[in-house]
Amino acid sequence: MKIIRSLSEMSGHARERREQGCKIALVPTMGYLHLGHLSLMRIARQYAEEVVTSIFVNPIQFGPREDLSSYPRDPERDQKLAAEAGTATLFIPADNDMYPQGFQSFVDVEKITQGLCGRSRPGHFRGVATVVAKLFNIVQPHYAVFGQKDAQQVAVIRRMVADLNMPVEIIIAPIVREPDGLAMSSRNVYLSGQERQDALVLYRSLAMAQEMIQQGEREPQAVISRMTGLISAVPSSRIDYIEIVDAASLEPVQRLAGELLLALAVYIGRTRLIDNCLVTVEKEVAAL
Amino acid sequence: MKIIRSLSEMSGHARERREQGCKIALVPTMGYLHLGHLSLMRIARQYAEEVVTSIFVNPIQFGPREDLSSYPRDPERDQKLAAEAGTATLFIPADNDMYPQGFQSFVDVEKITQGLCGRSRPGHFRGVATVVAKLFNIVQPHYAVFGQKDAQQVAVIRRMVADLNMPVEIIIAPIVREPDGLAMSSRNVYLSGQERQDALVLYRSLAMAQEMIQQGEREPQAVISRMTGLISAVPSSRIDYIEIVDAASLEPVQRLAGELLLALAVYIGRTRLIDNCLVTVEKEVAAL
Repeated sequence: MKIIRSLSEMSGHARERREQGCKIALVPTMGYLHLGHLSLMRIARQYAEEVVTSIFVNPIQFGPREDLSSYPRDPERDQKLAAEAGTATLFIPADNDMYPQGFQSFVDVEKITQGLCGRSRPGHFRGVATVVAKLFNIVQPHYAVFGQKDAQQVAVIRRMVADLNMPVEIIIAPIVREPDGLAMSSRNVYLSGQERQDALVLYRSLAMAQEMIQQGEREPQAVISRMTGLISAVPSSRIDYIEIVDAASLEPVQRLAGELLLALAVYIGRTRLIDNCLVTVEKEVAAL
Repeated sequence: MKIIRSLSEMSGHARERREQGCKIALVPTMGYLHLGHLSLMRIARQYAEEVVTSIFVNPIQFGPREDLSSYPRDPERDQKLAAEAGTATLFIPADNDMYPQGFQSFVDVEKITQGLCGRSRPGHFRGVATVVAKLFNIVQPHYAVFGQKDAQQVAVIRRMVADLNMPVEIIIAPIVREPDGLAMSSRNVYLSGQERQDALVLYRSLAMAQEMIQQGEREPQAVISRMTGLISAVPSSRIDYIEIVDAASLEPVQRLAGELLLALAVYIGRTRLIDNCLVTVEKEVAAL
């Protein structure tokens, strides 16, 4: 596995591979890799001979009170795991190269960044869209693979790519969970033993919601109330949001129909966790 | 000359040309072509076998009270002129294809869009940066050619390309003037006979400023005052701004030294005209 830190070297290497007729798939990560990331690389490998994994803890997507400085890092372990999962090139740019003095250009996706995580993390998706646009321009991949775990990020990137005509195909990989259901996340390392158990309530609430909908519930508020009740019963929890929205526009729905995203963000102790699931509900046919 | 209106056809054609080993140079315009535009195409032709000229009156760079609906258009004449000036492909996208329902992603260049034209045209450069980013992604040119006439636009695009790592080389072409000095502009067609004469004061004020600096004047305000006096003496004129700024950062300078941009925007009657010149002043050596 090749390790590249320089932006121009990364561009040059990718250009060379393209000119050799290779397809390139990019897997953008913030490192501290887990099985979720590795699944992205394996999926990327199915699309492209050259898998480029980037590791960059992107400062501009963290708010001033967020965990930028404490975000977990383990570069050596990351290198080993990335290589094993089929990464051909590991791209590890430096902060100063990505955001040199005088940097002032940003990509703003407007509406769909306002709700869900955007409400409590203003500027977060602006930082995400900007760094992803930069990585796309540096690597110029044919494909880019993102995890469904970050559901709003997926919607934002899809929107950005469509709106700005970016020449890249976006591949979405399903959420990878621990055997007990907890969604894989680099931030899970923040959890104490008890919190780790408490954190299962996110998945349990989503499973319950799916069950309710399968049983015929069509009122979003009924589902959200039951989820709220279940989660609130866990003393270490504090709900940021629980929402049921249209999967593409991320706008709240009045009635459970169509392609839906059930998404939530919950603090367990001081750790903010997110989880979600996609649900398709056949539209009701109006009575004749 | 090929005329393409579909975005996907444009992307496909450009990809084909690239794969044939052709260099591509893009010349973005809003049409109603004049000799200034044609010089951009001729310069583009020196860099690339395939010159793609786009004609698109970009709605999102016009303010609500600006001249979007009355902006001059002459598609047939444009086609003839573009072909004669070496355009291989004329790209004429439709508004609805560029900005379909739900469009919501923009490129924001922050600081250097605030002064000069940005002050009286809020949102203008956001619209410019966004459409240029889109055109770059659709055409993926090796080069893009812009005119120095729109000096702030040049600085904004250079900044955007550097900040977002866009894989394109920006070529800047000098201002083309009428024999009497008036900078070529599609908006010159708005001027009445008298206004056309009055409009010469823009160029005359720049020439006078250059002369003052050459004679040793180093106080920006002294130069600006004289320019203001000269222009204000023309009854049909109304000054939007006259500024002397650093050519790269566009920040006002306290003393005339280094690479400077003298820029002005002046209404002649109801028509807003801009003009500028670049001046290099050797830095003074401090006395020993």
